[in-house]
Amino acid sequence: MAEKLKIVSLGGLNEIGKNITVYECHGDILVVDAGIGFPDDDMYGIDVVISDISYLVKNKNRVRALVLTHGHEDHIGGVPYFLREVNVPIYATRMTAGLVELKLEEHHLLENAEIITVEPGEFFQAGCFEVEFIHVNHSITGAVALAIHTPLGPVVHTGDYKIDTTPISEEMIDLARLGELGKQGVLAMLGDSTNVENPGYSASERNIGQHFDSLFEGCRDRIIVTTFASNVHRIQQVIDTAARHGRRVGITGRSMENVMKVSTRLGYLKIPDGVMIEMSQIKNIPKDKLCIITTGSQGEAMSALYRMAFSGHKQVEIGPGDTIIISASAVPGNEETVSHIVNELFRKGANVIYGKRMDIHASGHACCEEMKIMLGLIKPTFFIPVHGEHRHLKLHAELAKQMGIPPKNIVISDLGNVIEVTQKSIKINGSVQSGRIFVDGTGVGDVGSVVLRDRKHLAQDGMLVIVLSLSSEDGSLVSGPDIITRGFVYVKESGVLIDELRDLVLATLENCRKNNIRDWATIKASIKGDVSASLYKSTKRCPMILPVIMEV
Amino acid sequence: MAEKLKIVSLGGLNEIGKNITVYECHGDILVVDAGIGFPDDDMYGIDVVISDISYLVKNKNRVRALVLTHGHEDHIGGVPYFLREVNVPIYATRMTAGLVELKLEEHHLLENAEIITVEPGEFFQAGCFEVEFIHVNHSITGAVALAIHTPLGPVVHTGDYKIDTTPISEEMIDLARLGELGKQGVLAMLGDSTNVENPGYSASERNIGQHFDSLFEGCRDRIIVTTFASNVHRIQQVIDTAARHGRRVGITGRSMENVMKVSTRLGYLKIPDGVMIEMSQIKNIPKDKLCIITTGSQGEAMSALYRMAFSGHKQVEIGPGDTIIISASAVPGNEETVSHIVNELFRKGANVIYGKRMDIHASGHACCEEMKIMLGLIKPTFFIPVHGEHRHLKLHAELAKQMGIPPKNIVISDLGNVIEVTQKSIKINGSVQSGRIFVDGTGVGDVGSVVLRDRKHLAQDGMLVIVLSLSSEDGSLVSGPDIITRGFVYVKESGVLIDELRDLVLATLENCRKNNIRDWATIKASIKGDVSASLYKSTKRCPMILPVIMEV
Repeated sequence: MAEKLKIVSLGGLNEIGKNITVYECHGDILVVDAGIGFPDDDMYGIDVVISDISYLVKNKNRVRALVLTHGHEDHIGGVPYFLREVNVPIYATRMTAGLVELKLEEHHLLENAEIITVEPGEFFQAGCFEVEFIHVNHSITGAVALAIHTPLGPVVHTGDYKIDTTPISEEMIDLARLGELGKQGVLAMLGDSTNVENPGYSASERNIGQHFDSLFEGCRDRIIVTTFASNVHRIQQVIDTAARHGRRVGITGRSMENVMKVSTRLGYLKIPDGVMIEMSQIKNIPKDKLCIITTGSQGEAMSALYRMAFSGHKQVEIGPGDTIIISASAVPGNEETVSHIVNELFRKGANVIYGKRMDIHASGHACCEEMKIMLGLIKPTFFIPVHGEHRHLKLHAELAKQMGIPPKNIVISDLGNVIEVTQKSIKINGSVQSGRIFVDGTGVGDVGSVVLRDRKHLAQDGMLVIVLSLSSEDGSLVSGPDIITRGFVYVKESGVLIDELRDLVLATLENCRKNNIRDWATIKASIKGDVSASLYKSTKRCPMILPVIMEV
Repeated sequence: MAEKLKIVSLGGLNEIGKNITVYECHGDILVVDAGIGFPDDDMYGIDVVISDISYLVKNKNRVRALVLTHGHEDHIGGVPYFLREVNVPIYATRMTAGLVELKLEEHHLLENAEIITVEPGEFFQAGCFEVEFIHVNHSITGAVALAIHTPLGPVVHTGDYKIDTTPISEEMIDLARLGELGKQGVLAMLGDSTNVENPGYSASERNIGQHFDSLFEGCRDRIIVTTFASNVHRIQQVIDTAARHGRRVGITGRSMENVMKVSTRLGYLKIPDGVMIEMSQIKNIPKDKLCIITTGSQGEAMSALYRMAFSGHKQVEIGPGDTIIISASAVPGNEETVSHIVNELFRKGANVIYGKRMDIHASGHACCEEMKIMLGLIKPTFFIPVHGEHRHLKLHAELAKQMGIPPKNIVISDLGNVIEVTQKSIKINGSVQSGRIFVDGTGVGDVGSVVLRDRKHLAQDGMLVIVLSLSSEDGSLVSGPDIITRGFVYVKESGVLIDELRDLVLATLENCRKNNIRDWATIKASIKGDVSASLYKSTKRCPMILPVIMEV
C-alpha cells in the first residue's frame, strides 16, 4: 500500500474563525488548533460557533495530540469543548499555554488537562508525526508555524503570521529555518490567506509606537487607549509611550486584566517600575498624567469602553478633555458597533482617534508580498490555501500559481473534505462529517436549523397565539378564542384588528362545525390558514401563528 | 421683532438616509428632500425607515413646496409617505422628477401630485423663499445644490455633491456660481459630511472608464457588470466601453430596467445604435461579444446578481468563463452580504473583480479637500454640517474651523432641534417632534419600540407558551398544562425538559392552591417566575414565557 497523508479542515475554510485542522498518517491523528467562531447576523441568539468534531470523537483512540499555534480565540477558544470529548496532551508555547489554562480553569477542566510547553526551535513526537515549532510574527506573542515531519516528508503549517522586520520585544519570524526546510524539500504548505486582498507588505508593529508618540506628545487630555486584549506588543508600546511622557497607566476590562496577568507573569510584558496604577486611584491623578488601557475596541456591548461611552463605568466618565485612541481595526461584522461607540464618544465631547482618521493599527496577517516570500522560501510541492473565505483561498491560489506552483499541485478544499497527499499527487478523496455546532447558553448543539428558522421568523414578524377550549363531548366552543400577540403589532392600538381576528376564528370554527370536521389537527390548520391569509392581505406581514386547542 | 430663519433637520443627521430639512421664515415653510433610510440590524422585520413629519402635518397650510436635490432613495424614497400627508408642489430637475414619477405611480399617487421641473440656473418662488438650482456633480445625474434666498440672505444647501473636473456627459459642478454667491455674502451653508473621513480628493467618474477599458481589453470571458441602478454615468461608461470592444449589452434587474427607461427617454443616457440586446436573445451571442449590466451590487437577496450566483436567474448561469465586475462599494452594513455573493461567484468558477482587488468605483461624495474648496468659495457666515453620523459632523466642523469660520458660528445639531439663525447669530432654540417611523409591510408606524423589543427577545431565545384551563367554579385544573415552544430548543430532542417543566407548572399551581391564590394574574406571574428561573438555571437562556389561562 502506498503511503498517504490525509489532511482535513474542520474549520477555518470559507469562514474566518474556529480553525481546526486534522493530519492523519499511519493511523495516527494530529490535530492543529481548536478555535471558535462568532455567529453571523442571522444566527439569532447564538453565543459562539464551534466545529463538529464527530470524526475525531469516533477516532479518539488514534488522536495523539492537540497542537496550538497561538492564543487567539479562533485558534484556542474551542479547546474546552474539544477536551471534553477528546482528552489528549496539548502542545503550545508558554504564552498560548497560559491563555489556555485561564480558559480551562473557567470551564473547570484544568485539573484533567495535560499541557506541555514547547518553545520555537524545539521538536516533539506525536505518533508518527514529529512536530517542530518555528517562531513567527503575529499580533499576539508566542505564535508559531509548525513543521510537521510526516513519514512522507515535511508539511509546513504556517498558522497566522506576518513578516515583521522590526517587531517589539521578540525576534523577526524565523525565515532562515523556513528557507532551510524549503531547500531540503517541503511536501506541502498550508498558508494563511486572510490578507491576500491587500497588496504589498503589512506595517510593522513598531510603526504604531511612533504614531502613539506623536499623539502623546504635548497632549493635555486624559488618554484612553483600546486594543485587542491579546495584543501584548501593542500594550507594551502604550505602556512604554505613557512612561516616556510621564503618565501613569490604569487597566480596565476583564479580558485585558487577565491577559496582562498572564503575560506579565511569563515575562512577555515588561512593566517599568511605578508606572501602573489601580483604577480606584486614578481620580487622584491629573488628566495629562494619566493613560487608561481598556477593552472594547470592537464596540462590544458591556465592554469597559462601551460602559465609559454610555456612562456606565464606575471610574471613568467621558467628556471634553478626553482623547480616545482606538488602536484596532473593526473585525468584519463589527463595523456598525464600532461606529456606534465612536459617534457616542464624539457626542460626549471627546476627541476620538480611529482607523479612518489615522493609521493606529497594524494587522497581524501577511499581505501579498509577504505571502510570496513564504511561498518562495518554502517552495512546497503541494499548496493548500487556508484561513479565509472562498475568495481569499482563490486569490491565494492565484499567487501560488504566479510563484510557479503548477495548478494541479494546488488544492482549494472545503470543510470536511479529505485532502489526500502522496509524494506524487494531491487530490480530494471523500469527506468526513463536519459542520457548525451552535453554542447557546450552556447548550452545545441543541439549537439547530429548525430552531434558528423559527427565531428568524419570530424576529421578522413576531407571533400570534390563538387559544380556545373545545368540549370533549361535542366539540363545541367552551372558552375563547383568546388571541395573544408579541412582536406583531402594538396591541393597545390594534384592538380592532384583534377583534376582527377573533370573529374570523369564530367563523372558521362555525365552518368546520357545518362541514362536520371534528379532527383537531384539521381545525387548527384551518384557523392558521384563514388567519394567515387575512393578516397578509391587511398588513402584508406573516407572523408565526400558533393555534392551541384545549380539550375540556 | 427681529427677523429669524429656522432650520430643522428631521432626517439626515447622525444617520445616513432619510434626509429631510425644513426651512421656516415669515411663516412660510420650505421642505428640502424626503428620503427613506434602511433598517439597522436590530430593527427586526422593518422594511424601511421614514421620518416623523408630525410637525409638517400640523403646519401643512404653511408648507409652500417640497424641493428635491437629486433622485437617490435617501432623498426621494419618502416622497409617497410625505405626499399622503402634505400635498404640496414638488420642484426637481427632469431626472429627479422622472424617478419620483415612477415611485408615485407605484403608490398610485401620481395623479394628484404636482411636479414642476426646474433646471440648474433657474429660480422659483415658494412663499418668501426664492430657490435657485445650482448644478453639482454626484453619482446620479440631475443633482443640484440649492441657493435658498431668504429674507435674511442666501443659504446654500449643498445636497450631496463632489467636484468632478472630468465628469461624463455633463458639466463640472458650477463652482463659479457658488463663488459668486460667496462674494456677495452667504448667510449659512449646510454641507454634505459623508466622506469627511477621506483626505484628499475623490476620484473622477472618468477614471473608472479607463479601468473598464483595461478589463475589457483582450478579455475572452462574458463580462457582467453590476453597479447602482441610478448611476447613469457609470452605466453610460459600461455601454460605451462594451460598444468600443464590439460587445452587445443586455440589462437585467427591475430597478436597472426602470432607471434605464427614464434616463434614455429624458436623453441623459445615450445608447449607440445596435448595441443593446434583449436578455432573451443573449444565448445566441458568443461569450466574448456579450456584456450584461445587472442590479445586485449590494448583494441584495433576490437581486439579479444574487439569483445568478445562486443559480436562480432565468437567462444567466455563472461559471468559468465569466468575469464579474462589481463597480460599487458596499454601503455600511452591507459588507457581509457583498462578501457572501463574491465568495459564491468565485466558488462557481468565475473571475470576480471587486473593490478590494481593484478600484472600480468612484464615490459620489466630496472628500476633505473638496469640502475645503466649497467652504472657501461660499465663505458662509454660519456653517451647519449635515448628512452624516455624529463623528462626520464633528470632523466637518473641524475642517470649517481650519477654514477660518469661528467656532461660535458653527452648529452641530440633532434631529428635531430648531436652529435659529439671525443676521448676527446662530443657536439651537428648542425642538419640534421628530424621530423614526418604521414601515413594515403596509403598516406605517404601527411597529414601535415595544414590538421591536419583543421581536429582539423572540429572536434571541425564542418563546414558550404554557396553556391551561382552570374551572371557573373552583379554580381547579381542567386541562393542560400544554407547553408549546418555538425557537427555544429542538423539541423532539427535549422531551425530558418539557416534561420537567410541566411538572414544575403543576407544582406551582398546587402551591397557589395551598396558599388560596385564586387571582389569575398572580397565578400567571408565579408560573412565569418559576419556569423562567428553572430554565435559566438549566440552560442559561431566557425565552419569552407566555402563560395563558382559559376559564372553562
